[in-house]
Amino acid sequence: MPRISHPRSSSTPLHEGGELALIERIRRRAGGGASTALRLGIGDDCAILRPRAGEDLLVTTDFSLEGRHFRRDWHSPQSIGHRTLARGLSDLAAMGARPMAAFLSLALPPAVARDAGWLEGFLDGLLDLAKQHGVPLAGGDTSESPSEQVLADIILLGSAPRGRALRRSGARVGDLIYCTGTLGGATAEFAQVQDGRGGKTQTASSMNPHLFPQPRLAAGQALLRRKLATACIDTSDGISTDLAHLCEASGVNAEIDAASLPLHPLAQQLTQEAAMAAALHGGEDYELLFTARAATKMPRKLGGVPLTCIGRVVAKKRRAPQVTLIAADGSRSALAAQGWEHLR
Amino acid sequence: MPRISHPRSSSTPLHEGGELALIERIRRRAGGGASTALRLGIGDDCAILRPRAGEDLLVTTDFSLEGRHFRRDWHSPQSIGHRTLARGLSDLAAMGARPMAAFLSLALPPAVARDAGWLEGFLDGLLDLAKQHGVPLAGGDTSESPSEQVLADIILLGSAPRGRALRRSGARVGDLIYCTGTLGGATAEFAQVQDGRGGKTQTASSMNPHLFPQPRLAAGQALLRRKLATACIDTSDGISTDLAHLCEASGVNAEIDAASLPLHPLAQQLTQEAAMAAALHGGEDYELLFTARAATKMPRKLGGVPLTCIGRVVAKKRRAPQVTLIAADGSRSALAAQGWEHLR
Repeated sequence: MPRISHPRSSSTPLHEGGELALIERIRRRAGGGASTALRLGIGDDCAILRPRAGEDLLVTTDFSLEGRHFRRDWHSPQSIGHRTLARGLSDLAAMGARPMAAFLSLALPPAVARDAGWLEGFLDGLLDLAKQHGVPLAGGDTSESPSEQVLADIILLGSAPRGRALRRSGARVGDLIYCTGTLGGATAEFAQVQDGRGGKTQTASSMNPHLFPQPRLAAGQALLRRKLATACIDTSDGISTDLAHLCEASGVNAEIDAASLPLHPLAQQLTQEAAMAAALHGGEDYELLFTARAATKMPRKLGGVPLTCIGRVVAKKRRAPQVTLIAADGSRSALAAQGWEHLR
Repeated sequence: MPRISHPRSSSTPLHEGGELALIERIRRRAGGGASTALRLGIGDDCAILRPRAGEDLLVTTDFSLEGRHFRRDWHSPQSIGHRTLARGLSDLAAMGARPMAAFLSLALPPAVARDAGWLEGFLDGLLDLAKQHGVPLAGGDTSESPSEQVLADIILLGSAPRGRALRRSGARVGDLIYCTGTLGGATAEFAQVQDGRGGKTQTASSMNPHLFPQPRLAAGQALLRRKLATACIDTSDGISTDLAHLCEASGVNAEIDAASLPLHPLAQQLTQEAAMAAALHGGEDYELLFTARAATKMPRKLGGVPLTCIGRVVAKKRRAPQVTLIAADGSRSALAAQGWEHLR
């Protein structure tokens, strides 16, 4: 890792092997990722990358903090590692970017650092997903956690053709609204995890949308390449919140057709009310929510995932709700942002 | 900030204003930084940068964790903000890079989030240093801290002419070893801070090497531009440790002349033994430690800071110490890495 923490306020080594030993364990595991852009990985003050000419560089950082984004008694180390990286990859997917390199800042409490199996499981989950998307772990930082909690921050760098990254701000009145895949699955599975059913799953499948979300990189890149989308965001906070972000950035309002929402099989097992709440407000599905001109011929699938038209972009009007939900019987209601973060 | 944390395991808002309000407060303050490379800052899924053709991209991440790297009862918010950014900038300096953009992941406990003054002070410290070096705060992440501790991770991107970034690995037998500025000051001031003397200082000066370290960007860039150095590292962990890293990477040994070490005025006030320990093992001076061919004519100052020759690179020999300290009377002793992290 480029830097080693220098804890002036503590003299306890991270664990038996110290921080360098932790870095060595990560470096050994990270060695596999091939990337033409990566010129120097873990081991100097900085990593060195060589972006290609004509490309923009995209950067995102995402915390994964124990007790806030995961719990060790609910999530397997593989799931925590996978979810840590998926958060960053999904941000790249939302802009149509190709991942270039990942950086990991990781602080472990002494008890976790002494448990070699936990770190190996965490790295299994993170690096399996990294390998799947060809992204090398190029550096980061390690430290002893100042609390009993595992603290991670993932940094993703990606590339997109110059000036062409998808943004939240391009939606125009008359555009249709689409999403990839299905909605509500993460919330439905999370309820199972909280009940002690399935949380310790160690391998990824499409039936684990909470434990092993699949960032939609291929779909995002195809949207960009084929110029299909006018605006895009990932559904990390719930579409009621994420669509509000997109509307805010684009200066428009939106209408969603409730009957059109593609529910994940796990959400379909819930009551209708719970399923709708999971689909609209649940978040962490890490699907793409995007807009396209009405005249654009949209394929049924993109990057291997189905696309569904769920609504349309309308003009911003005084006293009209930013997002309106239209029920199957045609009745209309304001869809307030009820994901984690409310727009005010 | 590109992403907003989605805390599935908590339903407590970050503070009265929520996370978006915190992002807004940061965005308002971050607006000032001008950078030709930054195309899109805080507010979408990722930030967008446009590196210049012919340049390599350098990336480093550094945790600043309360209870580990700082304490709120010892350090003013201005000092914490300054130190958070300085850690990353110093890594860029060590490779001769020019800073391009900074990203901040920041988690605040609710009590700190409610204290507007603390965040403003933290941003004052961070953004004053950022402005001084022309680096924009381009994005990051915010979250509620899962503990009572402030958690920060700083990510720095920089650029260097293709293939020319300074590394730890270029030192050769016969090279001379130099450092910028003075040593031991951070440790000396830290002792004062621990004793309750001066920790709440809110403005930077060269007499605050612990509270307001000055990353040596101009010196590092000049070393690269003028091709003066064969290898370089920053003195973040203490030169006994940092020089060992450089020797390890270069496959060489080193000798240091004790009498030549440039002591910071605050270190000169200590006993001779304490001053030597501070200079050799103290760390966090954030000076540059570099090697150069013996034939290279080295200026007295570089980037406004004095340079001092403190030793030489020698061949690696079986059973010889990696670093030898030569006392004023000519006696030789092994200099073990006694900074925070020991090489084993």
